[in-house]
Amino acid sequence: MAKRAEKMVYLFGGGRADGNAKMKELLGGKGANLAEMVLLGLPVPPGFTITTAVCNRYFETGGKLPPSLTAEVEAALREVSRLAGKRFGDPENPLLMSVRSGAPASMPGMMDTILNLGINDAVAEGMVRLFGNERFVFDAYRRFVMMYGDVVLGVHRHKCEKLMDEAKRRLGVTQDFEVPGPELRRIVRESKAIIRAEGKTFPDDAMEQLWGAVGAVFGSWNNPRAVTYRQLNHIPSHWGTAVNVQTMVFGNMGDDCATGVAFTRDPATGEHVFFGEWLRNAQGEDVVAGIRTPQKISYAHSGDESLEHKFPEVYRQLVEVRGRLENHYRDMQDLEFTVERGRLYLLQTRTGKRTGFAAVRMAADMVVEGLIDEKQALLRIEPEQLNQLLRPVFDPNAKRTAKVLAKGLAAGPGAATGRIALTAEKAMEMAATGPVILVRHETSPEDIAGMNAAEGILTARGGVTSHAALVARQMGKVCVAGCGAADVDYAAGVVRMGGVTLREGDFMSLDGTAGEVLEGQVATVPSEVVRVLIDKTLRPDEAPTYQTYAKIMAIADRFRRLKVRTNADQPDQAAKAVSFGAEGIGLCRTEHMFFGPGKIGPMREMIIAENEEDRRRALSKILPLQRRDFAGIFEAMGGRPVTIRTLDPPLHEFLPHTEEEIADLSRESGIPASAISAKARALAEFNPMLGHRGCRLGISFPEITEMQARAIFEAAVEVKKRGIDVNPEVMIPLVGKVEEFRLQAAIVRATADKVFAETGTRVPYLVGTMIELPRAAVTADAIAREAEFFSFGTNDLTQTTLGVSRDDAGSFLPRYRELKIYERDPFEALDREGVGQLVRMGVEKGRASRPKLKVGICGEHGGEPTSVEFCHEVGLDYVSCSPFRVPIARMAAAQAALREAAARKAAAPAPKAKPKPKVKAAPKPKARPAPRIRVLTKPAPKAKPKAKPVTKIKLTPKLAAKSKARPAVKPTLKAKPKKGKR
Amino acid sequence: MAKRAEKMVYLFGGGRADGNAKMKELLGGKGANLAEMVLLGLPVPPGFTITTAVCNRYFETGGKLPPSLTAEVEAALREVSRLAGKRFGDPENPLLMSVRSGAPASMPGMMDTILNLGINDAVAEGMVRLFGNERFVFDAYRRFVMMYGDVVLGVHRHKCEKLMDEAKRRLGVTQDFEVPGPELRRIVRESKAIIRAEGKTFPDDAMEQLWGAVGAVFGSWNNPRAVTYRQLNHIPSHWGTAVNVQTMVFGNMGDDCATGVAFTRDPATGEHVFFGEWLRNAQGEDVVAGIRTPQKISYAHSGDESLEHKFPEVYRQLVEVRGRLENHYRDMQDLEFTVERGRLYLLQTRTGKRTGFAAVRMAADMVVEGLIDEKQALLRIEPEQLNQLLRPVFDPNAKRTAKVLAKGLAAGPGAATGRIALTAEKAMEMAATGPVILVRHETSPEDIAGMNAAEGILTARGGVTSHAALVARQMGKVCVAGCGAADVDYAAGVVRMGGVTLREGDFMSLDGTAGEVLEGQVATVPSEVVRVLIDKTLRPDEAPTYQTYAKIMAIADRFRRLKVRTNADQPDQAAKAVSFGAEGIGLCRTEHMFFGPGKIGPMREMIIAENEEDRRRALSKILPLQRRDFAGIFEAMGGRPVTIRTLDPPLHEFLPHTEEEIADLSRESGIPASAISAKARALAEFNPMLGHRGCRLGISFPEITEMQARAIFEAAVEVKKRGIDVNPEVMIPLVGKVEEFRLQAAIVRATADKVFAETGTRVPYLVGTMIELPRAAVTADAIAREAEFFSFGTNDLTQTTLGVSRDDAGSFLPRYRELKIYERDPFEALDREGVGQLVRMGVEKGRASRPKLKVGICGEHGGEPTSVEFCHEVGLDYVSCSPFRVPIARMAAAQAALREAAARKAAAPAPKAKPKPKVKAAPKPKARPAPRIRVLTKPAPKAKPKAKPVTKIKLTPKLAAKSKARPAVKPTLKAKPKKGKR
Repeated sequence: MAKRAEKMVYLFGGGRADGNAKMKELLGGKGANLAEMVLLGLPVPPGFTITTAVCNRYFETGGKLPPSLTAEVEAALREVSRLAGKRFGDPENPLLMSVRSGAPASMPGMMDTILNLGINDAVAEGMVRLFGNERFVFDAYRRFVMMYGDVVLGVHRHKCEKLMDEAKRRLGVTQDFEVPGPELRRIVRESKAIIRAEGKTFPDDAMEQLWGAVGAVFGSWNNPRAVTYRQLNHIPSHWGTAVNVQTMVFGNMGDDCATGVAFTRDPATGEHVFFGEWLRNAQGEDVVAGIRTPQKISYAHSGDESLEHKFPEVYRQLVEVRGRLENHYRDMQDLEFTVERGRLYLLQTRTGKRTGFAAVRMAADMVVEGLIDEKQALLRIEPEQLNQLLRPVFDPNAKRTAKVLAKGLAAGPGAATGRIALTAEKAMEMAATGPVILVRHETSPEDIAGMNAAEGILTARGGVTSHAALVARQMGKVCVAGCGAADVDYAAGVVRMGGVTLREGDFMSLDGTAGEVLEGQVATVPSEVVRVLIDKTLRPDEAPTYQTYAKIMAIADRFRRLKVRTNADQPDQAAKAVSFGAEGIGLCRTEHMFFGPGKIGPMREMIIAENEEDRRRALSKILPLQRRDFAGIFEAMGGRPVTIRTLDPPLHEFLPHTEEEIADLSRESGIPASAISAKARALAEFNPMLGHRGCRLGISFPEITEMQARAIFEAAVEVKKRGIDVNPEVMIPLVGKVEEFRLQAAIVRATADKVFAETGTRVPYLVGTMIELPRAAVTADAIAREAEFFSFGTNDLTQTTLGVSRDDAGSFLPRYRELKIYERDPFEALDREGVGQLVRMGVEKGRASRPKLKVGICGEHGGEPTSVEFCHEVGLDYVSCSPFRVPIARMAAAQAALREAAARKAAAPAPKAKPKPKVKAAPKPKARPAPRIRVLTKPAPKAKPKAKPVTKIKLTPKLAAKSKARPAVKPTLKAKPKKGKR
Repeated sequence: MAKRAEKMVYLFGGGRADGNAKMKELLGGKGANLAEMVLLGLPVPPGFTITTAVCNRYFETGGKLPPSLTAEVEAALREVSRLAGKRFGDPENPLLMSVRSGAPASMPGMMDTILNLGINDAVAEGMVRLFGNERFVFDAYRRFVMMYGDVVLGVHRHKCEKLMDEAKRRLGVTQDFEVPGPELRRIVRESKAIIRAEGKTFPDDAMEQLWGAVGAVFGSWNNPRAVTYRQLNHIPSHWGTAVNVQTMVFGNMGDDCATGVAFTRDPATGEHVFFGEWLRNAQGEDVVAGIRTPQKISYAHSGDESLEHKFPEVYRQLVEVRGRLENHYRDMQDLEFTVERGRLYLLQTRTGKRTGFAAVRMAADMVVEGLIDEKQALLRIEPEQLNQLLRPVFDPNAKRTAKVLAKGLAAGPGAATGRIALTAEKAMEMAATGPVILVRHETSPEDIAGMNAAEGILTARGGVTSHAALVARQMGKVCVAGCGAADVDYAAGVVRMGGVTLREGDFMSLDGTAGEVLEGQVATVPSEVVRVLIDKTLRPDEAPTYQTYAKIMAIADRFRRLKVRTNADQPDQAAKAVSFGAEGIGLCRTEHMFFGPGKIGPMREMIIAENEEDRRRALSKILPLQRRDFAGIFEAMGGRPVTIRTLDPPLHEFLPHTEEEIADLSRESGIPASAISAKARALAEFNPMLGHRGCRLGISFPEITEMQARAIFEAAVEVKKRGIDVNPEVMIPLVGKVEEFRLQAAIVRATADKVFAETGTRVPYLVGTMIELPRAAVTADAIAREAEFFSFGTNDLTQTTLGVSRDDAGSFLPRYRELKIYERDPFEALDREGVGQLVRMGVEKGRASRPKLKVGICGEHGGEPTSVEFCHEVGLDYVSCSPFRVPIARMAAAQAALREAAARKAAAPAPKAKPKPKVKAAPKPKARPAPRIRVLTKPAPKAKPKAKPVTKIKLTPKLAAKSKARPAVKPTLKAKPKKGKR
C-alpha cells in the first residue's frame, strides 16, 4: 500500500485504466475522464497520466522530476507501445505522442501543449515511407519543432511561424495545406537553425523530447498567465497540474480519416437526438475554426454528406458510444472523436453546455427516462437559464445577418426591435403606430409611461441596476444599459454609434441577452411560455416547451420553502406576476403611480405648496387616483399579501425640468414659473441618495403618509366589499431609528381606524418597514418591537454598506471586477460577507424581539439565484422580484432547499437503516427545516469507483418513477466547479 | 415604620425639616433643597411639601386626593402658622401661601404656580389695615384671583389681564404699580364677575382655595405642555411632581423691603468674590425683567447704592449664608433672597451656571481650598467650556452696541471681525491689508487658501460639519455656517441680511460662539491661553487665566488613558496642535496640500491626463511639493506619530469650474478647453459621497498612491537624516473589502522598500486603514489581518450607516431634532446606538484578528466630549481632532476615565478595608484598565443623610491637599441630570 500511495503514473488504454473519473484531484479532469472512458470500453488512444503530486514535487525540488519517475514512465511507454502496436522513436513503425496539461479545475488555454512528439529526421522519413504523404508528415514535423522550441526551449514560436508565412507569400498561397512537402522540409531545417542560433538544441532523441516536454508542461503551471488565472479564480497553487501523454491519432491522413464533435442530445433544444458535426480528412481544430463548413453527422440532417452515410460503421459505433456515455454520466455529453484510417477514437468527453431550453427539456426528459431523480433534475438547471424560455427571441437566422452597432450591459434580457424614440413622449406617440425602442442618456421616473410604451430601452449611462434596468426588468422590457458607445444627441435628434448615425424614427434592434445593439429591424419570436401564460395566444397542449417548463416548475415548487413574491405597481404587472407564480406583492412602489396621466400635476402642486393647507389640497386630488390604483392591484392579487411602500424618492424627482414643463405647471397651479424654478433649485441635493427621501418625507410632511394610508385602506375596504379578500401590508421606507417608524406607523394605524370607522368595514393589515440602512440592521431588535414585518431593501442597503452609489459605480466597478475585488457586481448578486452579515444580523435581532416577525427581501437581489440561496439560508420567509424573475426565484429557492438538505445530510453522522427524523439534524437553530425534503433524503449507497455498467434498456416512465431515488454520480461532481462561479 | 412609609407631607422651617437634599425623587428638587437649607439653619419661610407619591395616587384615582391627606396638611399648616406667627385665613393676622410644583427633574415653566393664596375680601381689608398699603394689597389680591381663575377654574388669564390693560390705558399709565388702589379693588371685583359669568365660583375660604390649588398643581403634571416636555426629555410620567406650599414673603411692601439674586463666586470670571444684584422694594422677577436697573450687592461694586451699604445687617447675614452654602454644597451656588421689613429670607439655592473661564478657575481654586478633590474638579468642567479660554472674544462692551444682522450655526467658536470677501481669491488679496471675513454660499477644497487668509467664515448653506465648519475648526477660524438669512449674491457683489445690504469690502463681525452675524467692526480680545501658547506674546507668569488652565489640564492628563492626536495638514497647524497638547497627527489630509500655490496646476493636469504616462508626468511635478509638505509636518511633530491619508476626495473637486479657470488650465496644459469641460462633465457624479473616491482612486490609478507613498518616505528619510525621529503611518481611505487594502498596502510597502534601498536609510512605519464604511466595520476581522492600524472615520461612517448626507441633512435634520428622533446632530455627537455599534464591532473584530491593533478615531467626533467618552469605553487607543479641540478632548478623556472608574466601583461588591486590586474588577474583558486611576478609587464612606455641618475654617492649601480624597455629595447629584443631555 505504501508503494501504491506513491504511484506517479496512471496508465489508460486497451480496456484497462489505473484511474477513473473520481480521481480528478490526482489525475486532473482530462486524465480522469480519459481513464473513465477506457473503463467504459470506449476506443481511446492509449496513454498515461503523470499525477499532480509529481507536479508539486517538481516545484518543491526547484524544477526536478523525481528520479523514480523514469522507470515508471518507461514502463508505461512500453505498455502504450504494446497497445498501439508502434514504437516510440522507431522510424519503421513510429509512435507519436501528445503531451498535454490537465488540472483538477478547467484552466482553458492557460498551460502548454505539445503535439506530434517523437518525430525526428529519421522518423519523418520512415513516416513518409509508411504513409506516402510527405506534406502531411513534414507539416506535423514543422509544427512539433515550433511548439517544442517555444514551450521547452523558450524560442518564441513567431520566429518559426514567420518561415511559414514567408513561404506562403512567396508561393502566393493562403492556406497551410497548400504549402508542398519539399518546402516544409526546408522550413523544418530552418526552424532548427533558428533554435540553434539561439544557443538551444532541438533533441532528436524521442525520450529526451518526452522528458523535456513533461518538465515544460509542469513548469507552465507557474507561468504568469496561469498564476494570474488561478488568483482570479481562487484555484489553489498547491493543486498542481497532471500531464497526459497520449498516442497521437490523425484525422487528416487521407479520405479514410475524419474528425468531429458531437452532443448526446441537441444542446440548443434539448431534443433527444444525436447531434454533431464532422469533417473528412481534417484535424480537430478545423471543425471549430470555420475555414471549411462541417457537415452534420446524421443522415437525417446532412443526407449523403453525413457521417452516417460516408462512414456507416463508425457512425454505428458512435451511436453506441453515445448511449453508453449518457447512461454512465446520466447527463448530456459533449464528445470529440477522430477517425484514423477508418478506425474510431474518442479523445474527450465532458458534460455539454446547453441553452436554457435544452437544460429544462433534458432535465424533464431524463426524469421520465429514469436517468436522474427530480432533485437532480432541478439542480441541472441554472435558474437564470429560465429567462430564455420567457423572453421573446430573435429569429436566429435574422440575427446572423444583422450588424452589431455597439455593445452595452445586458440589463433586460430578450429581443426587441422597433423605431428609435428619444423622449418618453415621443415613444408614447410613436407606439400607436408600431414598436418603439426608447433611447436615452438615462431614464428617470417621469419616463415610466414612455418606457412602458416601448419594446426596448437603450441607455448610454447607468449600470445593471440603474433606473432603466430596474424598471425594464420589472416591466419585462428588453434593455441594454450603459452603452457608452451610443452618442445620444437630443438636440440633433440622432444617435451615433458604430460609425452609423441613426435618426429618431429609424429602426434598431436590441439583444438584451447579449447586450447588443443591432442595426435595423431584426425579426423576433415570442416565447411559448409567455404566449400560454400571459398572452393566452397558445393553449398549453399546443406548447410543448411550455409543458416542459410547467413540469419542471411544479417540481421546484414542491421542494422550495421560500415564498416568492413580486415587485409590481400596476394591476397588469401584478396579474402577469401571478401567472408566473408570484404569491404576493413584496414591493409596490407608490411613486410610479404619480407619473400616470393626470397624476403628476397634483403631485407637483403638492411639492410646490408652501404650507400644509395647500399641500393637503393637492393631496386630496391625488387620493382618488391612488385609491383606484390600489383597488386594481388588490383585485388582481385576490387576497394575496400586497406590500405597499409609502412615498420614497426625493421630491425633486417629480419636478419639471424643461422650461416648457415649468410653464405648464405654472399655468395649472397658478404659481409663478420663477417660484417653481426656485423650488427645484432649493430641493436639489448633493447626494440625493442620502438626502430628503423615504420616511423623512413622511416625517416632514405627515399629510402625505396620511393620504397614502387613506388611499390604501379605502381601496382595501372597497375591494373587500366586492367580496375579494385583501391583505395590505404597509411598508415604511428608509427607517434608521425606531422613532421614525413609530411616528409613521402611528399615522398609518390611526388612518386605518378612521377609515374602518367611516366605512363600517375592517380589513386585516400589517405595518412594517424596509431594512435598507445599516443603522436599521444593527438596531433591528428595537425596530421589530414596533414593526410587524421587515423587508430588506438590499439595493439601498448595498449602496450604504459599501458606500457605493450604483449610479456612479460605473467609473470604478468594472476595474474592481477585473481585479476580483468584487467577484460579481454587488448590485446583482448580494455581497454575503458584508451586506449579508447585516441582513443576518437584522433577521436575528428582529426575531429576537418578535419571534414570528415576517421577513422578506425586495431588493433586486430577490430574483438573483445565489442571493435567493442566501435568503433561504438566513431563514427569510419570502423573496420578491420583478415579474419576469419569479420563475427564476422559484427555481433558485428550490435548489437552495435541496443544497441545504444535502449539506445537512453530509454533516450528519452516517445514517442507520432508518433515518432519524430530527435528532441533531443541524446546528443552525435559525434556519427552518424544509418540510417536504425529508422523504427524499434517503441515504445514498457508497458510490463505487467502478460503476456497474448500466443496462441500455430504455426505461418506461413507470419504471423510471421507481428508480427516482437512485443516486447518480454526476451531481456531486458538478457541485464543485459551480462553487467557483458564485 | 409602615406609617412612616406613607408619610405624605414633609414640613420645613424653624430649623427643622422632615426631608433633605437627597430626597429629590420624593420631594422634587425644589422641596428637597428648601428642606436642606432649613437644616443648614438658613432663614427659609416655613412651609411643607406634598410628595410625588401623592401625585401618582391623584392620577391613579382619577383626580382625587387621598382622604388621609387632609389631616396631614392641616397639621402641617398649624405648624407653619405657629412658625410664621400668622394664621391662614385670619383677617387680623393673615398667613398667605405660595403653591408651587416641583418635580424631581427640572421642568422650567411647564407646570402651574399660584401665589398669594389665602386672600379673600376680609383678609384683604385686614391686610390694608395691617400694612396701610391698599395698592400693594389689592394688586396681590388681583393677581391671586387671576391665577386661581386660570389654573384652578379654567378661566383664561387674559380675560382678567384685559381689565388691567384697559385701566392703564384709561389712566394713561404704562406700569402696573402706577394703577392706584381703588382701581385695583374694582378690577378684583370685575375679575370675580368674569369667573362667575363662566359658571365658576371663586372660593372665599382659604382652605378651599388651598385644596383647589393643590389639585390643580398636581393636575398640571399632565397638561399637554408638560407631557410633551417629558416625552422630549425622556422624563418618565410615573415620577410625578411634588407640591410645595410655603409662606409668602414680600420684598415689595416698602423701603425696608428688597429682593435679589446672588452667586457665591463671580459666574463670569470665577473670582472668589460675592457677586449679586438687588432692588429695593421689589419682587423677585423685577431683578431679572430689566425694567429697573438693579444695583450690585457689595460696596466695592455699587458703593452707596449697594445692599452692603443700605442693609448692612442683611448683607452680613448673606455673607454668612454664602459661606455656609459653599462649604455645604462644595460648589458655587446661585441663590435668591427677599428682605421683608428688614428681615432676610432665602427662597432658593442651586448650583450656579458659569462661563468656561469661571468653571476652570473655580475648579482649580476649590482644589486649593480643599473643597473638592482633583477628580471632582475635573468633572466640574464641561469640556466644551474650555473653548472660551482659547478663542478670541469680542470686547463685551463693544458687542453690546453692535447690531445682530442674522443668526446661523455656531460652527467655529470665537470672535472675528473684518472686511467682507466673496471669493477665496478676493479674501487672499484683501488679507494683505487687513482682516477679512470670507462669505460664501458654501466652501469647497479650492477655497482653502482663502479660508486660511480669512479671520472668519460665513456660509449660507451647510451644517456644523460642512466643509466650511470642518476646515474652520481645524484652522481655528471663527465660523458661522448655514446662515439661511444671508442672501449671498456673487453677481451683484453683495450680501443681504437683516434688512441691510453689505458690499464686498464692508466690515462685518462674526460671533462663532453664539452663531451671530454682527454689523460693522466689533473689537476683539485675543485669548490669554493662545497668547501664551501660540502667539508667545505673553509670558505664563503674566497670564493668570493661562496658569489656571495649565493647572487643570495637567490634572486631566494625569487621569486620562486615551491619547489625543490632531487633524492637521500644514506644519503650522501641527505646531499649534502640539502646543495644545496633541500627541501626534491622527489625520493628515493630503488633498488640502494640492490647493496651495503652484500645486493645483499639476494636479489638474494629472486628472485631465488620458493615459498613465501623462498622469505620471503630472504626478512627478506634484511629488517634490508633497515631499516638502510632509517634511515640514514630520519636523513639526518631532517623532510623534503622523497618520497620512492617501488621496480621498473625488477628482472632480479639483477641476476648475469657471470658464476663466478652464482657459488658464488649457493654456498651462495644452489641452483644449472643450476637453477639460468634457472631463469635468464626465467626472460629475449623482452621489459623489458614494462615488469614485477614497482608495477607489488609488486602485484605478495606482500611480497616485505610488507618488504619495514616495513623497512620504522620501520626506521621512530626509527628516530622519537631519536627526529628527519620524513615525509615519500611512492610511488608506474608504476601504470596504480587505482586497482593496491589500492592493493599496502592497504599493505603499513596495515604494517604502524602494526608497529605503535608494537612500540607504530606513524609517519605521505602519500601513493601516480608515474604517468609515459599514462593510469595513463588519469585516474588520479580515481587514485587521492585513492592516496595522484602524482609524474610525466617523464622519463618513455616520453618513453611510444612517444614510444621511451631511450636506443635505439641513432639509430634515432640524425637524428630526425637534421631534427628538435624534437628540443631537449625529455628525456632532456620535450616534452610539447605531454608528457606535459598528465602531464597537470594528474594534472587537479587529482586535480578535490582531490583538495589538492600534485603533483611533479621526472623524469630527474625536473632539466632542460625549463621543470621546464613548471612544474611551470601547477601548480606542486615541482620538484625533482639530487643533483647537485638543484641550477639550484631553479633558473629556480624563472625565471618561473618571466616570468609568466610578461606575466600576459602584458595580463592584462593597469593598473591604483594603481594596482588592483586580479580582472581579469589571465584566468587560475588552476595556483596558486605566492605569493611573486605581490609587484614587478609595471607597467613599457612606454619605449620611444629614451631613455634618462643615466648619467654616478656611483651609490652607496644605490642609486642602490632605483632604483631597474626601468625597463631596454634589458630584453624585450632578451626574444624574447630566445624563439626559447626552
